[in-house]
Amino acid sequence: MSSSSAAPGRGDKAEKPPMRDALVGAAFRLFLERGYEQTTVDDIVALAGVGRRSFFRYFPSKEDVVFPDHERCLADMQAFLAASADEDEPVRRVCDAARLVLRMYAENPTFSVQRYRLTKKVPGLRAYELSVVWRYERALAEFLRGRFAGRRDGTLHADVIAAAVVAAHNNALRSWLRSDGQDDAEAAVDRAMRHVQAAFGAAAAVPPGDGGPDDVVVVVSRRGAPLWRVVQEIESTLGRG
Amino acid sequence: MSSSSAAPGRGDKAEKPPMRDALVGAAFRLFLERGYEQTTVDDIVALAGVGRRSFFRYFPSKEDVVFPDHERCLADMQAFLAASADEDEPVRRVCDAARLVLRMYAENPTFSVQRYRLTKKVPGLRAYELSVVWRYERALAEFLRGRFAGRRDGTLHADVIAAAVVAAHNNALRSWLRSDGQDDAEAAVDRAMRHVQAAFGAAAAVPPGDGGPDDVVVVVSRRGAPLWRVVQEIESTLGRG
Repeated sequence: MSSSSAAPGRGDKAEKPPMRDALVGAAFRLFLERGYEQTTVDDIVALAGVGRRSFFRYFPSKEDVVFPDHERCLADMQAFLAASADEDEPVRRVCDAARLVLRMYAENPTFSVQRYRLTKKVPGLRAYELSVVWRYERALAEFLRGRFAGRRDGTLHADVIAAAVVAAHNNALRSWLRSDGQDDAEAAVDRAMRHVQAAFGAAAAVPPGDGGPDDVVVVVSRRGAPLWRVVQEIESTLGRG
Repeated sequence: MSSSSAAPGRGDKAEKPPMRDALVGAAFRLFLERGYEQTTVDDIVALAGVGRRSFFRYFPSKEDVVFPDHERCLADMQAFLAASADEDEPVRRVCDAARLVLRMYAENPTFSVQRYRLTKKVPGLRAYELSVVWRYERALAEFLRGRFAGRRDGTLHADVIAAAVVAAHNNALRSWLRSDGQDDAEAAVDRAMRHVQAAFGAAAAVPPGDGGPDDVVVVVSRRGAPLWRVVQEIESTLGRG
């Protein structure tokens, strides 16, 4: 793969300033050639042909240039959640919010796979990534806490679902990254989100025309069956499996 | 509260070397008096009356002295999981493993509450804590992945449950810390773990004498009911609520 095909920003929206893209491209070229630790901000700005102040206008630190799209994605997620209608089923809504993150990775497979390899090797970047993941999880949990306010164990329920959504998302993301971006990212995240919805989702997910809300579902289960299998059974009875 | 009552180590087991305890006590006294960032390792060793090398024999960095018991607790958790019998229900087992962590905090309420306040104020310590939480979550997920090997979506199921357990644990822990360690930690973690088991636990949790594994449970639900409520209903039907 040539270093130009490795440059991030391909497929990105036009709103991003070219200088920012140039800095990300230069940074990754150097990280791949020399290693992350061996690359300084001075090296990056020299290759990009800009001054140090330009770098710090876009990125507070060298770590931030590794994850140039998370701030935008987090803002998109918060806007998406804030735009929810009262009738939106909350678990489905947070699952759809998580899809935005996978879509950001899938927009630029080459860059995402390179970053995955880099992050695995540099402990400081792993720590940075954990803090980013935690911010996504808090955004989902805050939304759910609002929806579950007044419900018994509402914050507990919210926190557990937010964590489950993030873990399912990350499972799908990692399997896609390990396929070098070759697998179908959308199919992977669909499967992961279905899994969470099977445990926590509400009947708002029943397709229309598939019976009204007063339909009765009867599930017969052996006591020995694990509960999640019972839930799966309910799911498939309701045609959501 | 006097600074001697604030010293960690009260209630800890005797196997810990006194010098290690003295370093933790000196560190926290200084962190509380001067702030974390303003305290150096040199300040800590001067107050404890030992040399720098003694500090680094016990703690790789200043951050590690803030969380002196996590390595031991993580090792205890891994040993607990490794000692699982084949017939142990996996979800209950990881819930019990998570209880070990809350117990570590509850052993020393004053220290835990002080550390909670400190960690909220210092971003570097927040990041350190996230990396610790991530290690607990990986330990639980690895155990569950082994138990769910060969099952369809086994790693996904394992990762989601591990994340749910950690989130529920942390919800209980935070509410206990916010009560300044006054609430009943055991009751808080019980409630949190019951919540996870309601979503994912298996029927191994049915109390003995409460019917054999061939009992039949019939659940009748409106289609409009959220699935987690259906699960709660199943739980209470089975007498595990």
